[in-house]
Amino acid sequence: MDIVLLGSGNVATHMGRALVSSGHRVVQVYSPTITHATVLGDTINARAIDDLAAVESVADVYIIAVKDDAIAQVAAQLPTSSKSIVVHTAGSVAMEVLAEHAERYGVVYPVQTFSKAKPVDFSLIPVAAEASDDATYQQLATLAGSLSNRVFPCDSRQRLALHVAAVFACNFTNHLYAIGADILREHGLDFELIRPLILETAEKVMQYRPKDVQTGPAVRNDMGTMQKHLALLKDQPELAELYELISDQVRGR
Amino acid sequence: MDIVLLGSGNVATHMGRALVSSGHRVVQVYSPTITHATVLGDTINARAIDDLAAVESVADVYIIAVKDDAIAQVAAQLPTSSKSIVVHTAGSVAMEVLAEHAERYGVVYPVQTFSKAKPVDFSLIPVAAEASDDATYQQLATLAGSLSNRVFPCDSRQRLALHVAAVFACNFTNHLYAIGADILREHGLDFELIRPLILETAEKVMQYRPKDVQTGPAVRNDMGTMQKHLALLKDQPELAELYELISDQVRGR
Repeated sequence: MDIVLLGSGNVATHMGRALVSSGHRVVQVYSPTITHATVLGDTINARAIDDLAAVESVADVYIIAVKDDAIAQVAAQLPTSSKSIVVHTAGSVAMEVLAEHAERYGVVYPVQTFSKAKPVDFSLIPVAAEASDDATYQQLATLAGSLSNRVFPCDSRQRLALHVAAVFACNFTNHLYAIGADILREHGLDFELIRPLILETAEKVMQYRPKDVQTGPAVRNDMGTMQKHLALLKDQPELAELYELISDQVRGR
Repeated sequence: MDIVLLGSGNVATHMGRALVSSGHRVVQVYSPTITHATVLGDTINARAIDDLAAVESVADVYIIAVKDDAIAQVAAQLPTSSKSIVVHTAGSVAMEVLAEHAERYGVVYPVQTFSKAKPVDFSLIPVAAEASDDATYQQLATLAGSLSNRVFPCDSRQRLALHVAAVFACNFTNHLYAIGADILREHGLDFELIRPLILETAEKVMQYRPKDVQTGPAVRNDMGTMQKHLALLKDQPELAELYELISDQVRGR
């Protein structure tokens, strides 16, 4: 398929690379900052543009991978037809924001965290798909299926829930890693010391369900240890508050 | 070395296996529940006992891997000599709890989460070591070094901080995974959908520092998305509270 990619961030970058690897043609990459469009465009052999008026009208699919609150305004400026499909890639934006800007539209949401510098195997990424009608869904599922083996139908409400779950399990988890790193540094210890633990904690839930492998003082209701930990955190009330809140929730499960 | 292992839980099990694999002899395994001692004893060719009075006095090292609040009372009943070393394996128990029960004592704390069913490569586990005197430290470092390539000196205060960091980065992280699983289930979605995300989040910080790879609506200060997420959680005030607390901390970093 011929695709126009609107956006040049982490999602656009990884999706663009995966599209080209799968034999699709990305004809244009748009970013309001031309240097950003050029960096991505050069790697996937696509023309870089910084003006939405320059978007070609012949593409099969327009993929909008920009910040959530810019999706509708980008969609409004696309030269769509009854043949083309406009999709966005966001977790928490309802599909219907595209309804007034295109006849055929949908969502392709890859459930993964992307950093430009770190390659990922797109074929293993679950991709939530939704479309304005069955024929469009089939086309989007075929497109997404050429990138990933794990495409599944998901309505906007489910996708929002999936994004919330991802925020807890990914974004908030990374914040807990950062807290761990801070505590170690304050005591002259290196973050390296808990890297094997972090990896093992994630690998465990590849096989098991999280609630079946919960460990630590809270699930053992080990009040003595929790008191020692809170004493260590006594000058960091934000961390103590978080420690108590999560411990209470773990104990209450 | 000849070792007596006091305890039959996750730490005792993995440490016992690693000791035997490294050519040490575990002469006895103690648990107050004889069936527990027998299960572990059988796998590492050690005699199972359920009475501390039966502990042999000829061992080189007594490793106490029991619940934190039972460590001192187990230590008090050991037939130690000036040649033997008594160690515990806990993160948050000061070494000095052993001082009145042994001449030579120390701590060997493996920084990892253990489940009996899941094998781990002990050689990669950082092991915090501390001892009552230099000669004892050298012996413990040699013993621990036969199990792991990553033995490092760590005093009791640092070890407590290390444990707190581990609680955030491991135990609390697993709780966030469990929250993710719950949210997905409530919306008819499978936990499998976020497994690749969980693994990638952990793998990212094997290379990078967590604060350099923080993603998500909070770090972008994307208030619109956060409001949608809080609306989804409106009937789960505990989750909404946690969402707001962590988001505020991420935004404030």
